[in-house]
Amino acid sequence: MQKIKPRTLSGFMELLPSEQVSFDTMVQRLRNSFSLFGFTPLDTPLMESAEILLAKGGGETEKQIYKLQKGETDLALRFELTTSLAKYATLHYNDLTFPFRRYEIGKVYRGERAQRGRFREFYQADIDIIGDGSLDTLNEAEVPSIIYKALISLGLQKFNIRISNRKILGSFFEILGAGDKSTEIMRAVDKLDKMGPEKLSKVLSEDLNLKDNQITEIINFVTNEGDPFETLEKYKNKNETFDQGTDELQTLKTHLSNFGVPETHYKIDLSLARGLDYYTGTVYEVYLTDHPEVGSIGGGGRYDNLAEYFTERKMPGVGITIGLTRLFYILQEQKLLNEKFYTPPADALIIPMTDDLSHAVKLATKMREEGIKAQIYTENKKFKVKISYADKLKIPFVVFLGEDEINKGTITVKELTTGNQTTASPDMLIKGILEKLKKLNQNPPIHP
Amino acid sequence: MQKIKPRTLSGFMELLPSEQVSFDTMVQRLRNSFSLFGFTPLDTPLMESAEILLAKGGGETEKQIYKLQKGETDLALRFELTTSLAKYATLHYNDLTFPFRRYEIGKVYRGERAQRGRFREFYQADIDIIGDGSLDTLNEAEVPSIIYKALISLGLQKFNIRISNRKILGSFFEILGAGDKSTEIMRAVDKLDKMGPEKLSKVLSEDLNLKDNQITEIINFVTNEGDPFETLEKYKNKNETFDQGTDELQTLKTHLSNFGVPETHYKIDLSLARGLDYYTGTVYEVYLTDHPEVGSIGGGGRYDNLAEYFTERKMPGVGITIGLTRLFYILQEQKLLNEKFYTPPADALIIPMTDDLSHAVKLATKMREEGIKAQIYTENKKFKVKISYADKLKIPFVVFLGEDEINKGTITVKELTTGNQTTASPDMLIKGILEKLKKLNQNPPIHP
Repeated sequence: MQKIKPRTLSGFMELLPSEQVSFDTMVQRLRNSFSLFGFTPLDTPLMESAEILLAKGGGETEKQIYKLQKGETDLALRFELTTSLAKYATLHYNDLTFPFRRYEIGKVYRGERAQRGRFREFYQADIDIIGDGSLDTLNEAEVPSIIYKALISLGLQKFNIRISNRKILGSFFEILGAGDKSTEIMRAVDKLDKMGPEKLSKVLSEDLNLKDNQITEIINFVTNEGDPFETLEKYKNKNETFDQGTDELQTLKTHLSNFGVPETHYKIDLSLARGLDYYTGTVYEVYLTDHPEVGSIGGGGRYDNLAEYFTERKMPGVGITIGLTRLFYILQEQKLLNEKFYTPPADALIIPMTDDLSHAVKLATKMREEGIKAQIYTENKKFKVKISYADKLKIPFVVFLGEDEINKGTITVKELTTGNQTTASPDMLIKGILEKLKKLNQNPPIHP
Repeated sequence: MQKIKPRTLSGFMELLPSEQVSFDTMVQRLRNSFSLFGFTPLDTPLMESAEILLAKGGGETEKQIYKLQKGETDLALRFELTTSLAKYATLHYNDLTFPFRRYEIGKVYRGERAQRGRFREFYQADIDIIGDGSLDTLNEAEVPSIIYKALISLGLQKFNIRISNRKILGSFFEILGAGDKSTEIMRAVDKLDKMGPEKLSKVLSEDLNLKDNQITEIINFVTNEGDPFETLEKYKNKNETFDQGTDELQTLKTHLSNFGVPETHYKIDLSLARGLDYYTGTVYEVYLTDHPEVGSIGGGGRYDNLAEYFTERKMPGVGITIGLTRLFYILQEQKLLNEKFYTPPADALIIPMTDDLSHAVKLATKMREEGIKAQIYTENKKFKVKISYADKLKIPFVVFLGEDEINKGTITVKELTTGNQTTASPDMLIKGILEKLKKLNQNPPIHP
């Protein structure tokens, strides 16, 4: 028979079992964190009518979208989760209660060209709070707090949330008398990280024809390393929107502290523009402190109109997206995944030493009822192979059940890391195993 | 601005928040059950090269598969999880340890014609145990035991696992001297449920030209309501494969009891053929006891060659699939979802009664640290609207924080179902809330 060569498509992450356990644990911990903040889970379809997915308008996106050939030709795979949310909130408006807090952790698809670290199928983890007509600004402080707690729950410590307010940068350019070029300047400033202040000056001067004093003020404003509020103070009372943005940023800072976010983990960064026109207030980007070169692992902000393509109803919101597959890839690359994190498929491997398997089956049943993940090894192999099975899978406990044990009502447990072997009653040894599992399960998936 | 009408494609299940919580809880409980039996989670790509997905050969499947237009034209969406497993086990053979136990709960896609209760996007929950060259028959008893424990963990009680062994039916036809028509007879017998014994007799006689005595024996064999082993005894020592199948079935019965599966929840059903040629030993189908009319909610069995399209290596296995989306749909239709199951997005809604929100934020942070899912209501609405928000979402506890409480260091908690209102220290009331939540969380997602 002609064989087909098995392969996985490039740009699709397919994990080995122990890696998958780490990934799933990260997802589960994010879910728990989002739940604690009162977010409800959604799981919307991966496929929608292309018209729905492209409602926002095409551009780069349209080129990357996966369309489907079958029957109805206008189907496509989602390339982010926000459009699905906009559709959901409009379609199910009457069944929802606002402000509506939802999270969704799901796969999205982008037909990018295969490239190291670029994925065509990847997970996004989104949280959003959607208001009906209005939404209080406290939510703009709560969202980065959730991300802080969520990332800490994974064991991740070295990250930083950069925060600014879109109202400030736009009106700052107005104060300088360059309001008509606001979008272009913002686009240039957004690349500050990549091109540095000198190149930025050149662009502002040569491409945008700004005056020298305007350029100096812009560069000082966006590169300031001191207290951002001192910088903001200088331009106070000149523009209402600017002052409002400053106030919101000040309030946000106070709330962040009450939400328990330490100053080590966020930074007010006035250069943060966040390309999309979509955002109208606070904006965020999340970075790994030691690896700014990989770019942001997530971002988001306040927007005034979630679903304007679907409805007249105004639904302002605030949200953030974490690129989970990308984050996991970077953690792997940078050796930040915790090798002490506990990932074996079973806690105990029962090796029956008699032909009659009934005692082994009963013991496995008992152990599982006590919450121990148990396997029975029944293949007809040499003893050494059986032990090496547990060894390869890092199953910490091997349980022997021979004539002797069966007759005496005992079991023998060997702890593979220490080699210690004990024969005693099942109840006693199960208790001992559970104790030790507690310790093994304490390590977080990411290096602390 | 021209609006696009929001809609969800037919055949795609999109749940409301409280339904989604029930669904997610079911998934989580299945995951826990599978883990206890030592299965490791996988999450393989939804998209593969069409050549891989269609390796098994086309037929009905090929007509239903979703192909993708973009760039590489040979991409497609998976329509079940087994092919992905076969690819995975072959591709990652050197990194895996056998027997390999994995579960995968994921979405699959079939371009069926829209029809009530038929889904184009749906979840399958698969467990499989894959051997390398050989696999002990104990695993054939363990798989239905896992399904038993998993469904019980959802609160589901009224289900039945029908079990047989493929070796028996095929060789039984040989014993009757109709071995050459084995496949056709099996296909007819497989429809016994739908057509009844009389119609089956007619098909066996008219379409397959069987003799009257052959037909009588077949009908008696497959409709037998007594002890199946008495029936099997009658044909003993006539065919080696038949006797082997009988022995395996007998051993399976003993193991099932040791695994803790009661006789009320499974039935040896000699009529069970399970269409696919793929299966070679024990076969299963799972039914809802009170709703046989909806057909099986899952099935599987023993196979000898998982990945013959990809490798010369023989990998026998045993597995079962549960159609989760379909199961959930039936449970909803039959009103079997537990309306007492706890699904609110938050346990407590904090309503600040002062302009200064800092106390509310600190309280929310404290409650979340204690494991209480908390929201802060900050919208500028009438008091009635705030309470009705909690009411609509069935949030059980509302926490008031006014000047009075702040000055005295207390909080006021109102339990919405009873109307009881208490003012006391946060520590004391948080303890009380946690106690009550334990009770609220005891109800399973499915009616017991």
